[in-house]
Amino acid sequence: MHINLFAFAAGHHTSAWRAPDSSSGRLGDITYWEHLARVAERGRLDAVFLADGQSADLDGVGSGPLWFLEPVTTLTALARATERIGLVTTISASFWSPFHAARMLASLDHISGGRAGINVVTSMNDSEARNHGMPALPPHAERYARAEEFISVINRLWDSFPSAAVLDDASTRWGDSARLSTLDHSGDFFAVAGPLNIPAPPQGRPVLFQAGASDPGRNLAARHAEGVYAVAWDLEMAREYRLDVRRRAEAVGRDPDELVVMPGLVTYVARTEEEAREKQRALNALLPVADALKGLSYFIDQDTSGWELDAPVPALPPLAEFTGPAGRYATILRIIESTHPTVRELLGYLAAGGGHATFVGTPEQIADEMQRWVDGGGADGFNLMPPSLPAGIEDFVDLVIPVLQERGLFRTEYAGATLREHLSD
Amino acid sequence: MHINLFAFAAGHHTSAWRAPDSSSGRLGDITYWEHLARVAERGRLDAVFLADGQSADLDGVGSGPLWFLEPVTTLTALARATERIGLVTTISASFWSPFHAARMLASLDHISGGRAGINVVTSMNDSEARNHGMPALPPHAERYARAEEFISVINRLWDSFPSAAVLDDASTRWGDSARLSTLDHSGDFFAVAGPLNIPAPPQGRPVLFQAGASDPGRNLAARHAEGVYAVAWDLEMAREYRLDVRRRAEAVGRDPDELVVMPGLVTYVARTEEEAREKQRALNALLPVADALKGLSYFIDQDTSGWELDAPVPALPPLAEFTGPAGRYATILRIIESTHPTVRELLGYLAAGGGHATFVGTPEQIADEMQRWVDGGGADGFNLMPPSLPAGIEDFVDLVIPVLQERGLFRTEYAGATLREHLSD
Repeated sequence: MHINLFAFAAGHHTSAWRAPDSSSGRLGDITYWEHLARVAERGRLDAVFLADGQSADLDGVGSGPLWFLEPVTTLTALARATERIGLVTTISASFWSPFHAARMLASLDHISGGRAGINVVTSMNDSEARNHGMPALPPHAERYARAEEFISVINRLWDSFPSAAVLDDASTRWGDSARLSTLDHSGDFFAVAGPLNIPAPPQGRPVLFQAGASDPGRNLAARHAEGVYAVAWDLEMAREYRLDVRRRAEAVGRDPDELVVMPGLVTYVARTEEEAREKQRALNALLPVADALKGLSYFIDQDTSGWELDAPVPALPPLAEFTGPAGRYATILRIIESTHPTVRELLGYLAAGGGHATFVGTPEQIADEMQRWVDGGGADGFNLMPPSLPAGIEDFVDLVIPVLQERGLFRTEYAGATLREHLSD
Repeated sequence: MHINLFAFAAGHHTSAWRAPDSSSGRLGDITYWEHLARVAERGRLDAVFLADGQSADLDGVGSGPLWFLEPVTTLTALARATERIGLVTTISASFWSPFHAARMLASLDHISGGRAGINVVTSMNDSEARNHGMPALPPHAERYARAEEFISVINRLWDSFPSAAVLDDASTRWGDSARLSTLDHSGDFFAVAGPLNIPAPPQGRPVLFQAGASDPGRNLAARHAEGVYAVAWDLEMAREYRLDVRRRAEAVGRDPDELVVMPGLVTYVARTEEEAREKQRALNALLPVADALKGLSYFIDQDTSGWELDAPVPALPPLAEFTGPAGRYATILRIIESTHPTVRELLGYLAAGGGHATFVGTPEQIADEMQRWVDGGGADGFNLMPPSLPAGIEDFVDLVIPVLQERGLFRTEYAGATLREHLSD
């Protein structure tokens, strides 16, 4: 089983920053992030993963912290605060020059001794495009075509300056230019001559992650990804997704076992189930209910203003009758069906992870569920999304990891030194 | 007096990597760079500065190491290995999106606690342009116009998310969007909506450096720079340059004392003058003479193949009769005039720093010269370019710094915490 820590702000619950002991005042303090990484490494997790966005959420800045430190710089600092854990940054193929991206990732791979990973995304907001010289985001299909070309170019750049080209022979030559290769790439989106101006790092190519949910996204993951971040509320959705990307990988000639599929996972864990539920309730109680209800109203296309917060969610029309975006609505129906939540509880599930798997209970209960997902073909591992940080990852590492280790489901020591080795052990 | 360490490869002498004890095998090892930064910090230097280039020198890769680790990632690691010293990266306005650049520098400023600096350059090689989607470098004037707009945009981005916009008030709002400002910039080269997606770092705006030698370069430095890296072989050239940029700064309404002008400085230092000269001779002896002579032949537009290496340089025509690029030729004439070198010695001066001031001698002799330059109006400080590393900076910090400190010319402790404070103390 493989486990990533997806470190985000003061935690993934949108109200995490409102808690009295919240870390929201420390988001610009690198020692906060170093602590998270060290805890994750103490738990022998595969990697720390950072998402990214290229704009401030101007309207949403009141509702909670979003972006703060930039991820490549953050992960470089984390490389020097840790020894073995992988470091995965998000890079938008829509806004990065592939030469800059390939170079920074190679540099991070050198600095970390072979622990760099790159999660290639295509970005989702026009506000991001407007910070990088475009009036709006290109259409979805064009963004994916661009990402495809982006990945091809960065791979070729990483191959263009092999470490064997460094001779360091004082009597003759420092490098052997005959071993460097140019790309002379001229495509639909990029023109890059190459070679890269940094010798190949320990991993050669940093590990490639993808999180595609759409059809072109799944194809991109199937063609290129070694790690795949997935979204699934329950095992059935997880299995459908995992089998689908594995099929697509096979169809392009890859061994599907090369793909490590990791659904996002929100956990509330404590020594007793009641204590765990209390943690969840405490965070949900901090939700600004009016705003959250308004958000829900938008997702389900219904007036929710008369709903009683502590009553069960009223019956909703079946998926087939819903005319808005189906994905989110389907998830909401499944949350209701599986947890029979009150309105407030539903808002809480959506506020923490927004439709990602949410396990609440004792360490044994959490481990049971994780095992059930892996055994059931829904996951090769998980992308942990702790509702609040640092407590959420401390709890997980101190309580759940030992149970997984006892059961022989998770490593007790790193076997290898690089992120690629972690993902394949 | 202000002193930067310009850390480069195995040292600034092109043959440094050929020495038996050279660090050329450690250029991808971050602990090498950390050691350099810690030594510089032990000497209470203002900053570590890294140059940058956006292409591998394909033809020159045999003749010595050029670029290896990428500078922003490197300096981020150095931020965590040091406590007070400034960290100055080079960023090319010709190839960077200003949003990425402003964001990474703000992030580095947070991570380092207010020690980030940015040296804005316009780049010089078509090979760099071809790695970033352009068939060739834009003309000089266009690059400087672009750099001017780039600086304006990054400054506005740094101002767009003031730290006071972070309220972190759990009962109401995390941020106050009314205190954020958009740029809605649409210029000749960039379109950037803003605001930046990172709250303002400790310094507000990271410190801006420039190294312009041309007319537009000097104007850019005069308008925007807080630190200026200069090239001068002797005090007369240094004084001419410094007075000129100060005049230009005054002409645009700035206090010229806001500019810290730092000529590059190559030093060979030892307890005796003879020992120092021996260090210089030892590095010069490693020069691949045929290549170096060919390079000289090109600069002076003469056939040098018959020149005797250990004889004095033959008489050269005066500057007025030279029809090639005048700057480099003038420097060569000045080197000959001031040092009466043998051919091999001239090649050595050009190989280490290529026309930057070169002081050889005891700690007292070096300190005398530095003092003479500062007192003579040629420098507010120096950008140290040790011919070999780490020895060159270790020697300087252990031998020269104590003399400067004894004379009251250099700080014995950092007075402030930020790079901007170092530059103004």
